[in-house]
Amino acid sequence: MERAEIIGVGTELLYGETLDTNTAEIAASLKPYALKVERTLRVADEPGPLVREVRAAWEGARLVVLSGGLGPTPDDITREAVAEALGEALELDEAVLSEIEARFRARGRTMPEANRKQALKIPSATWLSNPWGTAPGWWVQKGSKDLILLPGPPMEWRPMWREVLPRLGLPRRPYAERILKTWGLGESDIVERLGGLFQRGEEVEVGTYPRLQGVEVVVRGREDLVADLSEKIKKRLLKEVWGEGELTLAEAALRRLELEGATLSTMESLTGGLLGAEITRVPGASRFYLGGVVSYSPGAKARFGVPEELLAKTVSAETAKAMAEAARRLFGSTYALATTGVAGPDPLEGEPVGTVYVALAGPKGTEARRYRFPGDREAVRLRSVYAALALLLT
Amino acid sequence: MERAEIIGVGTELLYGETLDTNTAEIAASLKPYALKVERTLRVADEPGPLVREVRAAWEGARLVVLSGGLGPTPDDITREAVAEALGEALELDEAVLSEIEARFRARGRTMPEANRKQALKIPSATWLSNPWGTAPGWWVQKGSKDLILLPGPPMEWRPMWREVLPRLGLPRRPYAERILKTWGLGESDIVERLGGLFQRGEEVEVGTYPRLQGVEVVVRGREDLVADLSEKIKKRLLKEVWGEGELTLAEAALRRLELEGATLSTMESLTGGLLGAEITRVPGASRFYLGGVVSYSPGAKARFGVPEELLAKTVSAETAKAMAEAARRLFGSTYALATTGVAGPDPLEGEPVGTVYVALAGPKGTEARRYRFPGDREAVRLRSVYAALALLLT
Ligand SMILES: O=C(O)c1ccc[n+]([C@@H]2O[C@H](COP(=O)([O-])O)[C@@H](O)[C@H]2O)c1
Ligand SMILES: O=C(O)c1ccc[n+]([C@@H]2O[C@H](COP(=O)([O-])O)[C@@H](O)[C@H]2O)c1
Repeated sequence: MERAEIIGVGTELLYGETLDTNTAEIAASLKPYALKVERTLRVADEPGPLVREVRAAWEGARLVVLSGGLGPTPDDITREAVAEALGEALELDEAVLSEIEARFRARGRTMPEANRKQALKIPSATWLSNPWGTAPGWWVQKGSKDLILLPGPPMEWRPMWREVLPRLGLPRRPYAERILKTWGLGESDIVERLGGLFQRGEEVEVGTYPRLQGVEVVVRGREDLVADLSEKIKKRLLKEVWGEGELTLAEAALRRLELEGATLSTMESLTGGLLGAEITRVPGASRFYLGGVVSYSPGAKARFGVPEELLAKTVSAETAKAMAEAARRLFGSTYALATTGVAGPDPLEGEPVGTVYVALAGPKGTEARRYRFPGDREAVRLRSVYAALALLLT
Repeated sequence: MERAEIIGVGTELLYGETLDTNTAEIAASLKPYALKVERTLRVADEPGPLVREVRAAWEGARLVVLSGGLGPTPDDITREAVAEALGEALELDEAVLSEIEARFRARGRTMPEANRKQALKIPSATWLSNPWGTAPGWWVQKGSKDLILLPGPPMEWRPMWREVLPRLGLPRRPYAERILKTWGLGESDIVERLGGLFQRGEEVEVGTYPRLQGVEVVVRGREDLVADLSEKIKKRLLKEVWGEGELTLAEAALRRLELEGATLSTMESLTGGLLGAEITRVPGASRFYLGGVVSYSPGAKARFGVPEELLAKTVSAETAKAMAEAARRLFGSTYALATTGVAGPDPLEGEPVGTVYVALAGPKGTEARRYRFPGDREAVRLRSVYAALALLLT
């Protein structure tokens, strides 16, 4: 099999000042293709090393993908390094220059001189327009090889990559992957429940990955075997599987509301707005989500309808239920979700960090669940958000 | 300067199923030493590529550090690959074997046969004991070079690395780094404003990194030069620098409130709770933040005190100001922040995606700012949160 080489460019990636997730995401996007990814690299913004690595990668590979270092500042040198590695001299592309100038004009500004270098072009390259930023990408084709230069920010390179990847004419392989998303089971519970279905063969394999939204069961391998095995697994875990693939708990919850023609509101304490934020991350959320209250102080809880006698013990099922019922009344929604608990770093009201109550109020009454989550403050808050959303689904 | 090569071993690192943060953390720990880190690698658990990469790294470097692939399963092959790359044959180390057996006995188990391979030794290596797991590390010294093998889990390799790093006799250098955080300037504005202060020399260099919380200006290099240059830059950007280092806008804002003895509340629309969530991510937030309202529907805005006549045009400075004032009244806080706007994906009320108003109400009156942010829905929402917080600081 031929090789793909993936290079993240930027000194800040080497030291983790920016977390490099680009190279892994690009590698994963190549899974349907018959190319080997044997390694990925992060390389400093320095001409010497970058030219050397691009040259070495280009020599042995069918495809080289670089991301980062296409911006306007002096340390953005990817274009220059690639040109040198390929033995070409950069030239100014007037069309790209006008596009960048126009983008600045549209925001009522004139283009700073520094941005001019973003229109420098590797002669053998064609450019990939960037809907979300000023840095265009570049596509070099030579012989039967391709080299792609992408900007660093995911929201900029993702649409460009989605557009160009299918046009590269890469050899495909029969590969499939299905991700079943569960709530309420641990990894070892799943291994036990699956028994012989937990296959780890050459042609099809099952893996479990614990995520904050619950454990993912991933089936990958030959398409027909994946389809067959994942259906069997889904049946075995029927009650706990709430979705598949890229779906989030919030999306699944909003779909459920849509089917019912229902609306939702929230009252949050320890999550401080994170539950509302997760719901409204979904486009179209305003059709179902009316709004919420962040009752981060006892005074706020009282003002929005939580009975005074509960305020002495806010980390409790009763408070969570009262909060959900108060939100439901306040917003006049079909359902309401509430969170209360201890995100840390210190214990609260004698309860250890990670103690959380979530509640759902709806036409059929009010229900609360208690959790004791592991992890730091932010992990506890995120898990609380997902536990609240899971109330609508499982 | 001599080179250090850092390699993360594991196919799961290539595809991001496990995020590789080890190589970056190891690279950062080398900053006080006079070694260049020009790249880091992630390599698959496959003998061919791994032997090739270790050989190439060892050839050009003063120091090679590998992490991962020392466990007992068949895909843990780092030891074998390193032995082959160095031209040595593995041999069984009886002392290590007894240590591993003893560790299992202490947990009331007998050592599985698979773990036996963890006692295989590269003849020229000495072992580094692992207080937190069964996989020991290894230290190879040849001539004036060192190669270190560490296990993958951070909890296991960190104490081993802390122990061995000072014993490697690496050349030191006076190194410092300062991060200045700005709001309201683009990268090219900063380049222009800094002029000759934007140095990129061997001994001290400046870099700019655009973040959602504003552009970071990083100065790194020789301690005295960094101290001097960063003070000059800070003066040049005085009004726009709101903090340094790891500080977040929310932390900086809460510090400001603490100094003033003030409290805060929020009313959010397009951010849906994200502003409250960002504020309450900071431990101790409850001392300043009383709570908030997510007024995601016109009904909610009206209920919480936004005048009816503004509801026809919610994406406006007037609505943002009315929201901030309503929150301030509702919670009785010193200050209140508000957000309203268009996160997308579609235009709203004739305004394009990215149009956002943020407002601050306080003892001295109410102020609003208008933005036209680039990016997708989530980027617009995050930028709105940071723009709101920046109102308290710049
Ligand atoms: O600012 C507001 O008052 C406001 C309240 C709710 C939604 N929006 C925006 O309205 C658009 C549609 O919202 P949604 O959640 O249904 O996709 C989207 O651009 C949101 O950012 C804006
Ligand atoms: O659940 C609640 O009612 C509630 C409201 C505000 C804060 N908390 C928790 O109280 C602790 C202190 O909060 P903070 O924001 O001051 O660090 C922390 O564990 C929070 O998660 C909890």
